[in-house]
Parts: sequence; C-alpha cells; structure tokens
Amino acid sequence: MTRTVSVLSAASALPGPTVDNATLGRRLGMDRLWEQWVDAFIGTRTRHLAVDLDSGEIRHTLADLAHQAGSRALDAAGVTPEEVDLVVLGTATPDRLMPTTATVVADRLGIDGVPAYQLQSGCSGAVQALAVTRSLLLGGTARTALVLGGDVVARFYDLTADLRKLPPAEFVNYVLFGDGVGAAVLRVGEVAGAAALRSVFTRLVGLGREPGATLEWFGPTEDRNRPAATEDYKAIERHVPDLAAEVVEELLGELGWARDDLDYVLPPQLSGRMTALIVERLKLPQATEVSCVAETGNNGNGIVFLQLERALARLAGGQRALGVSIESSKWIKSGFALEGL
Amino acid sequence: MTRTVSVLSAASALPGPTVDNATLGRRLGMDRLWEQWVDAFIGTRTRHLAVDLDSGEIRHTLADLAHQAGSRALDAAGVTPEEVDLVVLGTATPDRLMPTTATVVADRLGIDGVPAYQLQSGCSGAVQALAVTRSLLLGGTARTALVLGGDVVARFYDLTADLRKLPPAEFVNYVLFGDGVGAAVLRVGEVAGAAALRSVFTRLVGLGREPGATLEWFGPTEDRNRPAATEDYKAIERHVPDLAAEVVEELLGELGWARDDLDYVLPPQLSGRMTALIVERLKLPQATEVSCVAETGNNGNGIVFLQLERALARLAGGQRALGVSIESSKWIKSGFALEGL
Repeated sequence: MTRTVSVLSAASALPGPTVDNATLGRRLGMDRLWEQWVDAFIGTRTRHLAVDLDSGEIRHTLADLAHQAGSRALDAAGVTPEEVDLVVLGTATPDRLMPTTATVVADRLGIDGVPAYQLQSGCSGAVQALAVTRSLLLGGTARTALVLGGDVVARFYDLTADLRKLPPAEFVNYVLFGDGVGAAVLRVGEVAGAAALRSVFTRLVGLGREPGATLEWFGPTEDRNRPAATEDYKAIERHVPDLAAEVVEELLGELGWARDDLDYVLPPQLSGRMTALIVERLKLPQATEVSCVAETGNNGNGIVFLQLERALARLAGGQRALGVSIESSKWIKSGFALEGL
Repeated sequence: MTRTVSVLSAASALPGPTVDNATLGRRLGMDRLWEQWVDAFIGTRTRHLAVDLDSGEIRHTLADLAHQAGSRALDAAGVTPEEVDLVVLGTATPDRLMPTTATVVADRLGIDGVPAYQLQSGCSGAVQALAVTRSLLLGGTARTALVLGGDVVARFYDLTADLRKLPPAEFVNYVLFGDGVGAAVLRVGEVAGAAALRSVFTRLVGLGREPGATLEWFGPTEDRNRPAATEDYKAIERHVPDLAAEVVEELLGELGWARDDLDYVLPPQLSGRMTALIVERLKLPQATEVSCVAETGNNGNGIVFLQLERALARLAGGQRALGVSIESSKWIKSGFALEGL
C-alpha cells in the first residue's frame, strides 16, 4: 500500500455577509460589556449565518452551501462531475434524515452512478471523510472523489427567545458557531502542484467520559423540553490542547517527520481564543499557523476544509503541514498530514 | 488487492413482543377490513416496536438495541471489545445529532482508541457500512470490525393523532416499519466456518429523480408543519424490482458467478408483499430466499443484518449467497456477495 492520494483543490461557501460581535450583540439584546466579554474570552470576531438576523428567515440549506462549495472545488481542480466516482460528506446537521444531503448535492452537481456516503459527526467528521475517502481511493474502488464537510446551525437559533435568560452552556453556541461548507477534490496518484495526503486518522478517546458537546433532533410531535445544544466549554478547555498535542506527536512519529520539518499547522478551531491556547501548547514556533475561526466562527465539519483551502494556496513543493481536529462530543481525536508535490 | 474479509458472526436485537396487525389495527382505531387490506397489499404480519403502544412511552433507544446486538455479535464471534479496532454504524434515525450513536455504543461495549464511523442513510446504509468497513480492513488500518445497522422510528409515531385522517403516504409507515438493530463482526483473512465477503457495492441512481421516501428532523423551536415522513409506495413498486435485478446481474458479472451457482438470495425487505414481487422478478428459482420482513417489519438499516444472521446459520462451505438492498430515498442500489468458507 504505497500509492499516494493527492488533494487537488479545496474551496468553501459561506452564507451572507460577515456578522460581527456588535451586530450579533444588538440582535441578541446584549450590551457593550458582552461584546468585550466575547472579544476577551471567546476571541471570535465575525461569522457567517444561514439565517437572516432581522427576519429570522433561513436563507441557505446545507445542500445549497455544499453545492456551491463542491462546484467551486471541482472548478478549481479542473474536474468535471462525470469524473467524480465517489462523494463523501461529513456533517452534524444534515438537512433531513432522508434523503441525505450527500445524495442531494450529488444530484445538483450532476453526479450519478457512484457511492455517496454521509458521515454523521461533530467537527471531526471532516477528517473522518478524508480517512474514509483515502481508504476507498487506495483500495481501487474509485479514482477521483469529492469530499465535503459543513454545518448549518440556523435551525438551533431561536431569535424570538430572551437569550439573556439562557444558561451559558447553551448561550455560548450563538457566539461560537458560524455556518459554512467546504469541499476538496482528491485523486489517486501524485499530482504535480497538489498536496499529498500522507496520513490521516481518527480515534475515539471517550471511554467513560461525559460528552463535551451535544446536539439533539426532535420528532414531529415529541416534547421539546430537553436542551437542544450544550457545550461543556470548561471540559473542552481542559482536554483539547493536550489531545491536539498527542495528535501532532502521533503523526510525526508515524511519518518519521521531525518537528522542525513542519512548515504549516492547521490547529483545531473551536474559537479564536481556544485556538490560540492550543497553538501555544503545540510548541511548533517554526510552523505557520493556518486558522480562520476568528473570522468564520466554528463551522463544524466545514472548518478543516476552510483551513485546507488556505493551506493549499501556500504549500510549496516539499513543504509539510499537519492538520488537527478534536471533537468534544464523545471525544474524538483526529489529524492528517500533507506534503506539497 | 486479493485479500479476503470474513464475516465471523451476525446478531440482532428487536424490542418488546411481536405486534401483529390485529393489535396494531386496534391501537390505531382501524377495523377488520383494514387488517385484511394490510395482509393483502402489504404482507407484513408482525413487527417489533420500541414504543409501548398502550402508554406511548419509548422504551428502547437505538443505542440500547445496538448495544445488545453488538454484544451478541461479539459473543457469537468469540471476539472481545479490546480486539475491535473499527466500529461502523449505519442508520437513518440516530438518537442524537451529537454525539453519534456509534460512539455511544462503542463506549457501552468498552471499545476505545479506534475509529467509530456513523453513516447516515436509509436502508442501504447497512451495505454502505459493509463497503466502508471492507475497504478499511483491506487497506490495513484495522483487522477486526464491529459493523452495525438499525433504526428506531418510534419518535415518528404520534399515537394521540387520529390516524384515519392521515394521507396514505404517511399512514403506510405505521404498517411497514419495525424497530430493530443488527450487527456483524468482520475480520481480515479467510476464517474457516465464516463467510467471505467477496464483493460489496453501493451506487447512486437518483439523478433527476424525486425522492421515493423522506424523513425530516426538527429543531428545538421551528414549525413542524411539514410531513415528517413520506413514502411514495407506487414509485417504489415501479422501480425497486428492476433495480434489484440489476444488482444481481452486476454482482454475478463482477464475480464471474453463474445464476445456478447461487444457493441463497437476500432480497430487499420493504414489505412482505414487495419482497415477494422482487423475488419473482429476480428469477433465481434454485436459490433459497432469506427474508424476515413479514415477521420483523422493515427495520431500515437493521434488516440486512437480520438477513445475514439467518444466512450465516445456513451457509455451508462453498455455498454462495447474494444480498440486495435498494434505498428509495434518493435512489441507491446496493448489494453484496458471500461465500461459505
């Protein structure tokens, strides 16, 4: 198993204009002090939202954004829909339970006659999608894959509620997340100018641990009196930096790369401040950080692709990058390694 | 890529007692004529339900049943949780959006430090899980996998509604489906007494077609005025038999097997009557049919594993079986081939 999988392109789709903390705070009925609190303790300055804050109308579905991102990734790679023989999409927030957003997006892009898989997960679903795709490509069942990841959390916003009464574990979600989808085109073989996906893994580390994040769906008539979304920000702050450091060590060890070999690092993107803490913990001063969470918010399954898009634009031949994603839901550590071709 | 993946065991978990059409009809306020109609046109006689029909209480989650089925499959294979280095679960109805049921079940079984993937799909998710698992096993990233599939549709039942007022496309769901989960243990290599998974594929065939089945989830505050579940039974009746026949042809062609080589066939299991129609269309009179839908109802992602459990108990060394699953949501055809070792 020595064949290579190359990442030919990455692209993204973010809905609507950027929404800054002042705008968000005004809409949520919060004061200037709140804005300062978000700046200091969250460190996320802007995000994009699929919901229109004034009308409450949801203007973009996951399929809409995935269609855009997928189309852009195919264009950037010079790959036609007919050439795609595998679609894999990671998300925590599919538009429906059936049909999957993966199959709907394939249809909109004109892709047919191939497997279309949808991985349910929190943010590590993006890395899971890369791992599953790499395996299927190396196994010879497909040559070219469109891989997508993203989330639209608009259906969890209740803009009519008095948000000042929410407990912090629920309220923080309004600040942390942004909507968005990313996509990448992967192909078997070494493609000049692309990036080789040298390694990728995901691994449960949740045995006996309480979930650090939860997200519920509701049926057509059941009671909706349980919290729809919770985030144990403290547990995340305690565990994620160490888990991220473990992922870096594992990848370096597996590939026989030295810390000094790294040109770029794509760290976890929960919030601007958390990412800064993690980067400090990783102790990779020579590696350029590729982050976007302070501007885009945490896009869940989208953010790894947004980082990939930024990294591919810079990665020169022979340069090396590591990406890390930690999912706090039931605790999954995941990462991948890229090398410029 | 000539290595083999063996299916060591398969097991299942079905909630509560069997519910026959007379009991279901009484609870739904239907008369004897309705029972006769179900017998004649649906052909499903019993099913198991996670919801208690009298109290309306949901007594089993997907994780509960998956834990049971997974535990039984591991026992039957003589495999310990520590030996499992991959978990893959297919479902249309996860307990939550996060964490995934796959990670929760891994936790309950004592499985940690390995990838746990959850494929969102209609019934073909079971075959998708087999396909992804086979690729990961052959790619060398794992040796032993626990694969699960199942659905709990209890949260879509409204036992307080006047069901006689529902349109047929919604009402039929109460009759067609049953709750249940199945599981299988797969391992790299040829294991005597097990079944080799000689081939498996899934393929979108939905380009430009309307979905034949839909299932919605709802957020914590959004309007719930769209239909939660629909089934275009007519479209399914029109397309599924031909698609199933195509899958058989594809598998036979790929493996170089003759129709006469087949000892067993595991046909799609939408309903007792539909399965009978499909089997007739497949024209495999020498192959023994392995079906259970008339007794278990359609368990969605579970049913392929229920059929596997029955097939493995009978498949002798050198005997051959084909399994077929057709998903009508956005139209996916899928199938797999087994050979006794």
